[in-house]
Amino acid sequence: MYNRIMDEKKISAFFGKQELVPAIIQEARTGEVLMLAYMNEESLARTVETGYTWFYSRSRQRLWQKGEESGHVQRVVSITGDCDDDTLLVRVEQTGPACHTGEATCFFAEPVYREKPEES
Amino acid sequence: MYNRIMDEKKISAFFGKQELVPAIIQEARTGEVLMLAYMNEESLARTVETGYTWFYSRSRQRLWQKGEESGHVQRVVSITGDCDDDTLLVRVEQTGPACHTGEATCFFAEPVYREKPEES
Repeated sequence: MYNRIMDEKKISAFFGKQELVPAIIQEARTGEVLMLAYMNEESLARTVETGYTWFYSRSRQRLWQKGEESGHVQRVVSITGDCDDDTLLVRVEQTGPACHTGEATCFFAEPVYREKPEES
Repeated sequence: MYNRIMDEKKISAFFGKQELVPAIIQEARTGEVLMLAYMNEESLARTVETGYTWFYSRSRQRLWQKGEESGHVQRVVSITGDCDDDTLLVRVEQTGPACHTGEATCFFAEPVYREKPEES
């Protein structure tokens, strides 16, 4: 069982400037960045109520729980705002793959750019 | 000295859907998430040309190089797109603190929410 600690005043501060706030989802156990999605105030409220990530889909114009169909839910370990209150970093424990393609992370593609040490 | 590998066709794909793409900046050496900023096509082009991060400032409506005043630049290790081409994950080696406040990361605040194991 877990207790939860939250700062409700601080949470609502994120929605003064913008309706949708980008949320970076990071696997707490490995530090791997899993995905980025958007939260509105209601989806953040549901996230802190339930302890699992909820987002707002811009294309479907509705709230969705990550894993609502697949079962690949994200239990929230912590939510931290950035220095100017316009981005959230959400550390989670991911069940199953994070990406709808079945990959562990949404950033599974080959890099479009990378440094490569010169052959010596 | 480093060579660079890039996929220019893939890079321009990110700007078909939207003018500004959120870029998650992650320290390559530790996995720590440092900040989120926005890239337009020109700032991404400058980033891959120079090997250091450039962004587009929505408030100032201009390109800026991270560290242009402070010297706290970000050398780019890799840039990876997500599964639906609307977010970039940029792995960097950060010089100095990433945050303009002097903190190592922009996510330095106390979490607005966190799980806390119950006292046993």
